[in-house]
Amino acid sequence: METKADRGVTLWFTGLSGSGKSTVSEIVEVVLRDAGYKVEVLDGDIVRTNLSKGLGFSKEDRDLNIKRIGFVCNLLTRNGVIAIAAAISPYKEVRDYNRKEIGDFLEVFCKCPIEVLIERDVKGLYKKALSGEIKNFTGVSDPYEEPENPEITIRSDSETPEVSARIVLDKMVEFGYVDKERLMSVFGSEDDEKIKKRLEDLGYI
Amino acid sequence: METKADRGVTLWFTGLSGSGKSTVSEIVEVVLRDAGYKVEVLDGDIVRTNLSKGLGFSKEDRDLNIKRIGFVCNLLTRNGVIAIAAAISPYKEVRDYNRKEIGDFLEVFCKCPIEVLIERDVKGLYKKALSGEIKNFTGVSDPYEEPENPEITIRSDSETPEVSARIVLDKMVEFGYVDKERLMSVFGSEDDEKIKKRLEDLGYI
Repeated sequence: METKADRGVTLWFTGLSGSGKSTVSEIVEVVLRDAGYKVEVLDGDIVRTNLSKGLGFSKEDRDLNIKRIGFVCNLLTRNGVIAIAAAISPYKEVRDYNRKEIGDFLEVFCKCPIEVLIERDVKGLYKKALSGEIKNFTGVSDPYEEPENPEITIRSDSETPEVSARIVLDKMVEFGYVDKERLMSVFGSEDDEKIKKRLEDLGYI
Repeated sequence: METKADRGVTLWFTGLSGSGKSTVSEIVEVVLRDAGYKVEVLDGDIVRTNLSKGLGFSKEDRDLNIKRIGFVCNLLTRNGVIAIAAAISPYKEVRDYNRKEIGDFLEVFCKCPIEVLIERDVKGLYKKALSGEIKNFTGVSDPYEEPENPEITIRSDSETPEVSARIVLDKMVEFGYVDKERLMSVFGSEDDEKIKKRLEDLGYI
């Protein structure tokens, strides 16, 4: 009998720039691959190059970009792949559109207060946005609509990326998309060191 | 042991408008699905809506469109799906780029003399292209670069779509991407009636 664990799913990371979408999704990717799952990450930046060259940051262009990512996630998901989207995706309506189209869909809200992101500002983007050098910057000069009922919420202001990834993976098990035993073959319940080592080897942390 | 038949492949249909790309690819899709394979068809028209809205028909825009289809075919192929692209894809260089990127790639040249297509003109597009109502129409006012060494050639001027589909499927077996036994479970070597019936039921012919 086919179970949910044989089906694909789209894991949709949404959140402000610097909120941990790419970092956490990469850890989740590595663990799921190690556990034998088929996984593809559609990161916002990769997609802007390969699917959405020429699109800007108006609401219309952002929505088009997010719909395209959704279209590809849908193709992968219905063929048994775990598709991981990591894109700011600031507008609720288009996220919900993708959710409806895809069906097997878990929204991961990467929650972090804007003050923390501005303070951290790893890429220096917030400084540029606040000075007006970058226009239409989500959270500063462009809106971000928080998810109302995300299946998963992670918090980069109070969790390490490894802990956030663990929360995501546990929820995937809970929703039936990932088999607990298969996941445990990669790292045990107390064995955070093992996954950390593996991620270090891969150059992720 | 993993064989080619467990891997995905991209089947890339190229040819002029009306040369049978969509028709034949749909038959191939149905048969492969019936045989239990994971299949996705990326038809030029569907892709123009979902991935390439806003792109026109200049060389640059056509190439961008074809690269996007290639990007998606690659994601599917490396996850064990048979990805079928059906797009005019007039330029050799970008078809070869996709071939190189994807690796598991079979080019299907839908060969048909332009005179036959103009005579047939099912959608009335050639008439409009010849009168100048449609600009940049491949084969009339825009170039088409024939494949030099396609793995498969089909000819809609001298074959029925069912025969063409059969040629494609046989070649897939020959190249090791499809298992002969599995295919035979859908239709036997003399049993063209069965596939015809199945396609009729599905409303394809």
